[in-house]
Amino acid sequence: MSTHPERTEPTIVRTVAELKAAGRELLESAAAAGRTASLGLVPTMGALHEGHARLIAQARAENAVVVVTDFVNRLQFDDPADYERYPRVLEADLAVAGDAGADLVFVPEEREVYPDGRPRILLSAGTLGEKFEGASRPGHFDGMLTVVAKLLHYGMPDPATAAATGYRVYFGQKDAQQLAIVQRMVHDLDYPVEIRPVPIVRSAEGLALSSRNQFLSDAEAEAALVLSRSLFLMKERAEAHLPLAPDDALDMIASAPGVQLDYFEVVDPSTLEPLAFNCAETPFTGEALVLVAARIGSVRLIDNMPLRAD
Amino acid sequence: MSTHPERTEPTIVRTVAELKAAGRELLESAAAAGRTASLGLVPTMGALHEGHARLIAQARAENAVVVVTDFVNRLQFDDPADYERYPRVLEADLAVAGDAGADLVFVPEEREVYPDGRPRILLSAGTLGEKFEGASRPGHFDGMLTVVAKLLHYGMPDPATAAATGYRVYFGQKDAQQLAIVQRMVHDLDYPVEIRPVPIVRSAEGLALSSRNQFLSDAEAEAALVLSRSLFLMKERAEAHLPLAPDDALDMIASAPGVQLDYFEVVDPSTLEPLAFNCAETPFTGEALVLVAARIGSVRLIDNMPLRAD
Repeated sequence: MSTHPERTEPTIVRTVAELKAAGRELLESAAAAGRTASLGLVPTMGALHEGHARLIAQARAENAVVVVTDFVNRLQFDDPADYERYPRVLEADLAVAGDAGADLVFVPEEREVYPDGRPRILLSAGTLGEKFEGASRPGHFDGMLTVVAKLLHYGMPDPATAAATGYRVYFGQKDAQQLAIVQRMVHDLDYPVEIRPVPIVRSAEGLALSSRNQFLSDAEAEAALVLSRSLFLMKERAEAHLPLAPDDALDMIASAPGVQLDYFEVVDPSTLEPLAFNCAETPFTGEALVLVAARIGSVRLIDNMPLRAD
Repeated sequence: MSTHPERTEPTIVRTVAELKAAGRELLESAAAAGRTASLGLVPTMGALHEGHARLIAQARAENAVVVVTDFVNRLQFDDPADYERYPRVLEADLAVAGDAGADLVFVPEEREVYPDGRPRILLSAGTLGEKFEGASRPGHFDGMLTVVAKLLHYGMPDPATAAATGYRVYFGQKDAQQLAIVQRMVHDLDYPVEIRPVPIVRSAEGLALSSRNQFLSDAEAEAALVLSRSLFLMKERAEAHLPLAPDDALDMIASAPGVQLDYFEVVDPSTLEPLAFNCAETPFTGEALVLVAARIGSVRLIDNMPLRAD
């Protein structure tokens, strides 16, 4: 699939009707030009950083049409104050989205997405949404799934569009639990869409990019590196078919100054349940996911690492 | 839209892949023949009677391709014994579906719909699913919505199918709460589909058709007529712009031998909340829905009537 020959400003669309009309027009142009008329959707809550840019760039590389959605979803905030102070920086977002290759940026008013206020029918993430990040945020993943279910329908190519031949939706691996739950929704409810996970973007030292990193002091940023170091230790052991022995990683984290561990777990990537084998003693084989969350000063960070050894 | 020139046996499809392939082929044939390539989906749990036939016939009249789904959805039964004894009469269903004009009948094995057993991600009907029929059947409407969400995706025309130009899904008005909840799901989650409600089919005396009517004795069937009579009384008053005065209808039902009323309520058709005006004294205007449920001997029956007066 080609990249854009020339970077242009993305088009802002504000209503679902505009989004569908503009998406259809772009798909039809692509088909008319003999290209594979697929659409890539990148759902975001704005405040775009390099991690989002990677999502958009991958969507650009794989699809004729790229749509970024930029909407702060009230439904997934359990704390109204947190919702109110969530950054809204549309001008900066448009620059990031445009540089990364978005064609359309969907920036709806809240009443466009929730015309009747809180929806009466919601998605329920069940027990998958009650652990890890969901443990302290009741309703968060139900609210996330509900807006994703809506956004998937907004972006879905209309069958009346001749020759649309693919629909892919991009999520970052950084929010591993969100990704697992969305993949499960698409599987369980048979959404006709392909979910494309995009790897975490890290600083040169290994810190997973996050809009929250800006709140770390230099010393805290240094201390935070223990999170990715502990994950890379697990990855090395997995790929060497050694026992993961997570206690060593836990010791590393415990020895870092000012790092308060929330959780560090080795789980099944799709069910997020603890692995059935003894990580301390059994040589690693198969697939797993290591999840970590910690507070460093006043900043809470999450990170994770997929493990695989055949 | 034309009716079928000649009645043929419907094609049985057993997997989602077969359903999608067969649906696509029929849509493409219709488009090639210059017809409007729309698809009508009729979700059922089988045990088809004249009420279902009416749904299928309406889908036939409005669409180039008609798909009936015939699947007893374990997820919406709160009582496993009730699930086990639910009638499964595929041969008879095929005759009804074929006579009414179905092209395809989707008859999946349970493992096709629920390959991993109970889904982890469910739809939640919220408070709409907790009243009336939901009051005595916890989880019923969540399970119904979840399978409908899946079926809507199964039947959805593939954008790669050139010229598919409509997707309609048919539900009977008999199950008024189910219809209201499905309409709310499509609205709240923006399913790209049109829900088409189909009016209740009644016997000459007025009894709403139901597979349960066969369990009524002659005397019980006579007594059961009070339900539709009470509803038609409400309809006459609504259309005459009189107060509905539901106490009169309640008196009628109370005087019928062996009829144990469960509920009789005048509600808002979309929220199922009680009407905001005084039904006893205020002349009727606008829209409403009357819901009734009663036990007659060992048989529980439901019926309802939409009211409208401009």
